[in-house]
Amino acid sequence: MRILILGGDGYLGWPTAMRFSSRGHDVHVVDNGLRRRVHEEAGSDSLTPIPPLADRVAAWKELTGREIRSTEGDLTEWPTVERIFRGFEPEAVVHYGELPSAPYSMKGRDQAVFTQTNNVVNTLNVIYAIRDLAPECHLVKLGTMGEYGTPNIDIEEGFIEIRHNGREDYLPFPKVPGSMYHLSKVHDSHNIHFASRVWGLRATDLNQGVVYGIQTDETAIDDRLLTRFDYDDVFGTALNRFCLQAVIGHPLTVYGKGGQTRGYLNIVDTLQCVELAVLHPAQAGEFRVFNQFTEQFSVWQLAELVQKAGAEVGIDVTVEPIDNPRIEAEEHYYNATHTKLLDLGLRPHLLNETLIESMFSIIERFKDRVIADHILPRDRWRPTPT
Amino acid sequence: MRILILGGDGYLGWPTAMRFSSRGHDVHVVDNGLRRRVHEEAGSDSLTPIPPLADRVAAWKELTGREIRSTEGDLTEWPTVERIFRGFEPEAVVHYGELPSAPYSMKGRDQAVFTQTNNVVNTLNVIYAIRDLAPECHLVKLGTMGEYGTPNIDIEEGFIEIRHNGREDYLPFPKVPGSMYHLSKVHDSHNIHFASRVWGLRATDLNQGVVYGIQTDETAIDDRLLTRFDYDDVFGTALNRFCLQAVIGHPLTVYGKGGQTRGYLNIVDTLQCVELAVLHPAQAGEFRVFNQFTEQFSVWQLAELVQKAGAEVGIDVTVEPIDNPRIEAEEHYYNATHTKLLDLGLRPHLLNETLIESMFSIIERFKDRVIADHILPRDRWRPTPT
Repeated sequence: MRILILGGDGYLGWPTAMRFSSRGHDVHVVDNGLRRRVHEEAGSDSLTPIPPLADRVAAWKELTGREIRSTEGDLTEWPTVERIFRGFEPEAVVHYGELPSAPYSMKGRDQAVFTQTNNVVNTLNVIYAIRDLAPECHLVKLGTMGEYGTPNIDIEEGFIEIRHNGREDYLPFPKVPGSMYHLSKVHDSHNIHFASRVWGLRATDLNQGVVYGIQTDETAIDDRLLTRFDYDDVFGTALNRFCLQAVIGHPLTVYGKGGQTRGYLNIVDTLQCVELAVLHPAQAGEFRVFNQFTEQFSVWQLAELVQKAGAEVGIDVTVEPIDNPRIEAEEHYYNATHTKLLDLGLRPHLLNETLIESMFSIIERFKDRVIADHILPRDRWRPTPT
Repeated sequence: MRILILGGDGYLGWPTAMRFSSRGHDVHVVDNGLRRRVHEEAGSDSLTPIPPLADRVAAWKELTGREIRSTEGDLTEWPTVERIFRGFEPEAVVHYGELPSAPYSMKGRDQAVFTQTNNVVNTLNVIYAIRDLAPECHLVKLGTMGEYGTPNIDIEEGFIEIRHNGREDYLPFPKVPGSMYHLSKVHDSHNIHFASRVWGLRATDLNQGVVYGIQTDETAIDDRLLTRFDYDDVFGTALNRFCLQAVIGHPLTVYGKGGQTRGYLNIVDTLQCVELAVLHPAQAGEFRVFNQFTEQFSVWQLAELVQKAGAEVGIDVTVEPIDNPRIEAEEHYYNATHTKLLDLGLRPHLLNETLIESMFSIIERFKDRVIADHILPRDRWRPTPT
């Protein structure tokens, strides 16, 4: 299958590209290097050293004999999108190509406007490209569980049956997202739903939980194929950051009360889910929403798991609650349905101490690359009045 | 009160500015002349002749002795927004400042991207300006009933109590909007809701129905104070267009089966509703949603009303169903709650034949200005495959 991977230089995009390529698919990755630039400007970096995209692709060719095509290009520019679609004629588009940082989007007005326009415009360009240039192509879009927020009812997969005043309808699940970034994904979901209803697009919106882990079958082949590992205040996420803090002897920084509960999944399960979605495409006019995670944890539970895994390998891990920079419920009901990917065949890799210990050992290898003053949060959701 | 009116040169913005000014408020209007430019480029125009904004403001001063300040400026440019907020220190912002055309937004990719970025960015700029420069200021934002679409359940005012699996929550009403323009308003609503929750903004989202009518107390003072009257394929709306068609002897163009039911209101009730919202501001942190219309009609009912009013004054009105350019349900359930503005004191001016006849006579005065080849729809929601 011809599979276009947008954001194919990223944490998940690059491993996804290798996965499909290893299975014999024809893979074309597009990336504008935005995450690399944001890191450079901030003075932060991935823990793992990441070669330029061209070198990654060359290493993949050298090591496996397989070719991944790549384009450096900005999806907000229509001529770029048009050229790629005309040239490659994709049968599936896996769309990771967005700025994926809540803290970045909350730094200030400039960053909020940039995040929303960047993400909304490139997704609009993608749906118009599919409509006009590849109408049978299946869009697999990465959304986020953060679109839902933390409602006091069970979260369903994208839609909910609502009975009201004696009538009923099956409607989009109400969204109460928690940052300008999460809002941009909600906007995308509405736009894609419209494209399916009105133009007949095939679309799958993967509302993904928080991904952890660092290794996939393909990244393990050679260090030149590693994926990035972000632990900084802008791109880092809970479990990955905790593992790094444990290894370098930094207290685990729990935000506020730590009762914030979310869905989590291993990076290898991200690849499984995306592959299942691509291999079982949506019907013409169908807008499917899958909640893509395997387990729920509170931040405290994660901290305790890391502490326990640390004890097993002789690392003394401390936990230090800090003032929560975000505005969010710190104790709340959370129960999200996630059966559709299981129904398609997902076999979850659940979180356990062995996995955490293997993360410790990879982090250990690169720990002299850690930039410690980029770990703590710097951007508050509610600015201090000036 | 210091009231900033964004889009203050428009069909509703200009009458709103005069209304508040006539009541003794300090009014500042901002407009970038976008609607005038889109008309110029298309070769269409308002039925009523509209002087430049500076001339309108000067005529208002001359006729009433009252001053309306005006700025020609683009709200997507932050320095413009910042300068206006610092200089005027608004206590309320009435935000009509968006590109308000579903057909325009559906012309193609360029127009969709322009509509969404224009509307989303200027609303982001406004909420950041309030947060940082006028935190007590009340945002009164014009949304649209079209954000909801046509669900099979009663439409509530912005939020709905959902009971699900034995639990319940009061959540945003699910949105299934029908065009790229309507989607932009859904995005705005999510962004403003966030600003209220996280930054404590006072906000009222007015989900307005389709407005009809041409005259308010202030536009009637002098022809230089008239508001615009759009009947073209881009900016025209159902009842206004039917009245014009009746006067010029054009068949009323009903799209498809004509069972499309929507909420409608008289322009004088728009002014009442906006005034009620401004005079009874939302609390800090409150995101209120009012459904702003007074009656529901199907397109067929409107056509019949115009036909009947025509018969009264000796005009023979014919109705001609045409192929629906939009993708929408043409027969559907529709029942939308609209009690919150009534609770605040709204006294509706319901639609009747007298009102339609008075529209006929105003249209008659300007009928030699009609550009007849801009009446029929040209933009289809689903393009013909090329």
